[in-house]
Amino acid sequence: MGLLAAGIGAGIAAIGAGIGIGMIGKGAVESIARQPEASGDIRGAMILTAALIEGVALIAAIVCILLVFFA
Amino acid sequence: MGLLAAGIGAGIAAIGAGIGIGMIGKGAVESIARQPEASGDIRGAMILTAALIEGVALIAAIVCILLVFFA
Amino acid sequence: MGLLAAGIGAGIAAIGAGIGIGMIGKGAVESIARQPEASGDIRGAMILTAALIEGVALIAAIVCILLVFFA
Amino acid sequence: MGLLAAGIGAGIAAIGAGIGIGMIGKGAVESIARQPEASGDIRGAMILTAALIEGVALIAAIVCILLVFFA
Amino acid sequence: MGLLAAGIGAGIAAIGAGIGIGMIGKGAVESIARQPEASGDIRGAMILTAALIEGVALIAAIVCILLVFFA
Amino acid sequence: MGLLAAGIGAGIAAIGAGIGIGMIGKGAVESIARQPEASGDIRGAMILTAALIEGVALIAAIVCILLVFFA
Amino acid sequence: MGLLAAGIGAGIAAIGAGIGIGMIGKGAVESIARQPEASGDIRGAMILTAALIEGVALIAAIVCILLVFFA
Amino acid sequence: MGLLAAGIGAGIAAIGAGIGIGMIGKGAVESIARQPEASGDIRGAMILTAALIEGVALIAAIVCILLVFFA
Amino acid sequence: MGLLAAGIGAGIAAIGAGIGIGMIGKGAVESIARQPEASGDIRGAMILTAALIEGVALIAAIVCILLVFFA
Amino acid sequence: MGLLAAGIGAGIAAIGAGIGIGMIGKGAVESIARQPEASGDIRGAMILTAALIEGVALIAAIVCILLVFFA
Amino acid sequence: MGLLAAGIGAGIAAIGAGIGIGMIGKGAVESIARQPEASGDIRGAMILTAALIEGVALIAAIVCILLVFFA
Amino acid sequence: MGLLAAGIGAGIAAIGAGIGIGMIGKGAVESIARQPEASGDIRGAMILTAALIEGVALIAAIVCILLVFFA
Amino acid sequence: MGLLAAGIGAGIAAIGAGIGIGMIGKGAVESIARQPEASGDIRGAMILTAALIEGVALIAAIVCILLVFFA
Amino acid sequence: MGLLAAGIGAGIAAIGAGIGIGMIGKGAVESIARQPEASGDIRGAMILTAALIEGVALIAAIVCILLVFFA
Repeated sequence: MGLLAAGIGAGIAAIGAGIGIGMIGKGAVESIARQPEASGDIRGAMILTAALIEGVALIAAIVCILLVFFA
Repeated sequence: MGLLAAGIGAGIAAIGAGIGIGMIGKGAVESIARQPEASGDIRGAMILTAALIEGVALIAAIVCILLVFFA
Repeated sequence: MGLLAAGIGAGIAAIGAGIGIGMIGKGAVESIARQPEASGDIRGAMILTAALIEGVALIAAIVCILLVFFA
Repeated sequence: MGLLAAGIGAGIAAIGAGIGIGMIGKGAVESIARQPEASGDIRGAMILTAALIEGVALIAAIVCILLVFFA
Repeated sequence: MGLLAAGIGAGIAAIGAGIGIGMIGKGAVESIARQPEASGDIRGAMILTAALIEGVALIAAIVCILLVFFA
Repeated sequence: MGLLAAGIGAGIAAIGAGIGIGMIGKGAVESIARQPEASGDIRGAMILTAALIEGVALIAAIVCILLVFFA
Repeated sequence: MGLLAAGIGAGIAAIGAGIGIGMIGKGAVESIARQPEASGDIRGAMILTAALIEGVALIAAIVCILLVFFA
Repeated sequence: MGLLAAGIGAGIAAIGAGIGIGMIGKGAVESIARQPEASGDIRGAMILTAALIEGVALIAAIVCILLVFFA
Repeated sequence: MGLLAAGIGAGIAAIGAGIGIGMIGKGAVESIARQPEASGDIRGAMILTAALIEGVALIAAIVCILLVFFA
Repeated sequence: MGLLAAGIGAGIAAIGAGIGIGMIGKGAVESIARQPEASGDIRGAMILTAALIEGVALIAAIVCILLVFFA
Repeated sequence: MGLLAAGIGAGIAAIGAGIGIGMIGKGAVESIARQPEASGDIRGAMILTAALIEGVALIAAIVCILLVFFA
Repeated sequence: MGLLAAGIGAGIAAIGAGIGIGMIGKGAVESIARQPEASGDIRGAMILTAALIEGVALIAAIVCILLVFFA
Repeated sequence: MGLLAAGIGAGIAAIGAGIGIGMIGKGAVESIARQPEASGDIRGAMILTAALIEGVALIAAIVCILLVFFA
Repeated sequence: MGLLAAGIGAGIAAIGAGIGIGMIGKGAVESIARQPEASGDIRGAMILTAALIEGVALIAAIVCILLVFFA
């Protein structure tokens, strides 16, 4: 049961990171294209929010790696 | 059963954080591009709402880590 | 069964908070960008509705934490 | 079975509150940005509808808390 | 089985109320912002339709509370 | 089995009423805002269609209440 | 099995009526707002199509009521 | 098994009729509002396509009624 | 098993016909409203494509009726 | 098992044909309304792509009919 | 198990072909309506991409026919 | 189990190819209609990306054919 | 179990590649049509991101091929 | 169970990478087409966010490869 959770959980975490960081990245490249001189502020907000998502996704990945070695 | 929940729950929490913070981050970078001089207010609202989502997602992640060691 | 519910329920609660607060946060940063001088009223409505969602999500998280220790 | 329902039901209730209050909050902050002088009427309609959703979500949460102590 | 239905059914009812009243509330605040002098008529239609949804959702919640005490 | 159906069926019926009456209510308040002098005709069509949905949803709710007492 | 089908089937039928009549009702009130003098023709088409949906939904509801008394 | 299929199948058929005739009805009332003098042709196409959907949905309903009496 | 398939399959076929013919019918009434003098060509294309969908849906319905009498 | 697959598979094939030919038919009637003098070319492309979908859907239907007589 | 897969797999393949070729066909007829003199190039790209989808869908159908005779 | 996977997997692969190549083909025919003199570059990018999707879909199909003969 | 995973996993990987590369390819052909002289830069970004998706999809396909020979 | 997780998890990870990098790549090529002289900044943000998604997806893929050799 733990092994089942490890594989599927890691995959779902990748979907989470994909949806979230994908939306941010899409917004960021379009915003830079519209307002190139504000690219510093945009990159700051982009990295800040992407890091918050990456954090939760990595925690989920670590939980799944733990499950591989525990179960 | 607890191990199954740990992996899948952590993955779902990552989706939650991804959808939510992704929408906020997308809105924020587009708003900064449209109104660069209001970037302070925008960043404030962005961090405030992202932190509320991050909080619930981290609680879910902690519940899942607890489950790994309990189950 | 309780452990299974704890992990998945906490994850689903994070999705709930993510969808809801994400929509509010996205609307708020875009509204501040469009009308910076109304940012006080906007922040007030933003915090009020985000708090209502956060409340239900935290109750769900607490129910899940209870389940970890009960089950 | 009751414990399973408690966790998942509370999570689903959080999704319900998230979708509903999120849509209202998004509409409200955008409406205040478009028409700041009508913010009193807007806030009134916002709180009225958000309270109706919050009520059903809290009833669902209470049902789930009951289930934790009964089952 | 009845306990399982109680928790999940109450949660689903909260989604029903959330989707429905959320759409109405979103439309109402945007309509008031566009036409503030028609806010009386708008509020009337808003309350009428929201009450119809709230009624079905409350019946569902009551069915679920009955299930907690019966099952 | 009947108890399971009662809770989940009542919840699904609330979703049905929520989606349907929510769409009608959203359209109605926006239509009143656009054409306030036609609010009588609009309210008539709104009540007529909302009643048709409410009818089916109430029948579903009654079926579910029957199930609670039969099963 | 028949009782399970009765509750869930009635709920799904309510979703069917909700989606369909909701779309028609939304279109109708918006159309009346755009062209008030054609409200007779619009109401005719609205009632005709809503009745077709209502018919199938009521047949589904009757099937479910039959199931309650048969099973 | 047949009873289960009867209830759920009838409900799904109602969704089918709801989605389809709802889209047609929505398009029809909006088209009549845009071009009132073509309402004869529009009503003809509306009834023709709605009847095709109604036919399949009624066949599905009849299959489900057969199942109630056979199973 | 065959009876289960008969009911659910007929319902799904009604969804298929609903989605498809609904899209065609919606497009057709809107097209007639925009270009009334091309209503002959439009009706021709409408009937041709609707008939292709109706054909597959009727075959599915016939398969389901066969299943009722075979199983 | 084969009977179960026959009914559900035929239903799903009808959804496939419905989605696909519905999109083509919707596009075709709207295109004819916009450019009536190109209706020959449009009808050609419409029939060609609709036939490709119809082919796969009919193969799926034939597989399902085979299953009725084999299983 | 193989028979179950044959029916459902063929149905899903029809959905795949429906979604894909439907999108291409919709785009093609709209493009021909907008630019009738480029209909040769459009038809070329349409057939090329539709054939790639048809190929995979036919392979899936053949796999399913193999399953009928093997299982 | 392998036979079940073969049929369903091949069907899902057809959905993958359908969604992907369908989006590309739709974009390509619309782009050619908008800019006929760039049809060489457009066709190049179209074939390149479609081939990448076709490759993965064919690998999935081959895996499924292997499963038919192995299981 | 491994054989089941091989077929379904390969199919899901094809959906992943289809959604991702399809979005990129659609964007690329539309971008080339809008700005033909930037087609070099566009093709570069297209190939870079498509390769990242293709890589993960191929790894998933290889995992599935491994499963066929291991299980 | 581990083998089942390996195949499906790797497939889901490919969907995650596909959705995320696909959205970024689509945004990037459209942004380069709109603002070719900002292509350096755009490519930088594109690679940064795509790498974050690729990282989580590769971790998920590695977890799945581990599962193949462990289970």
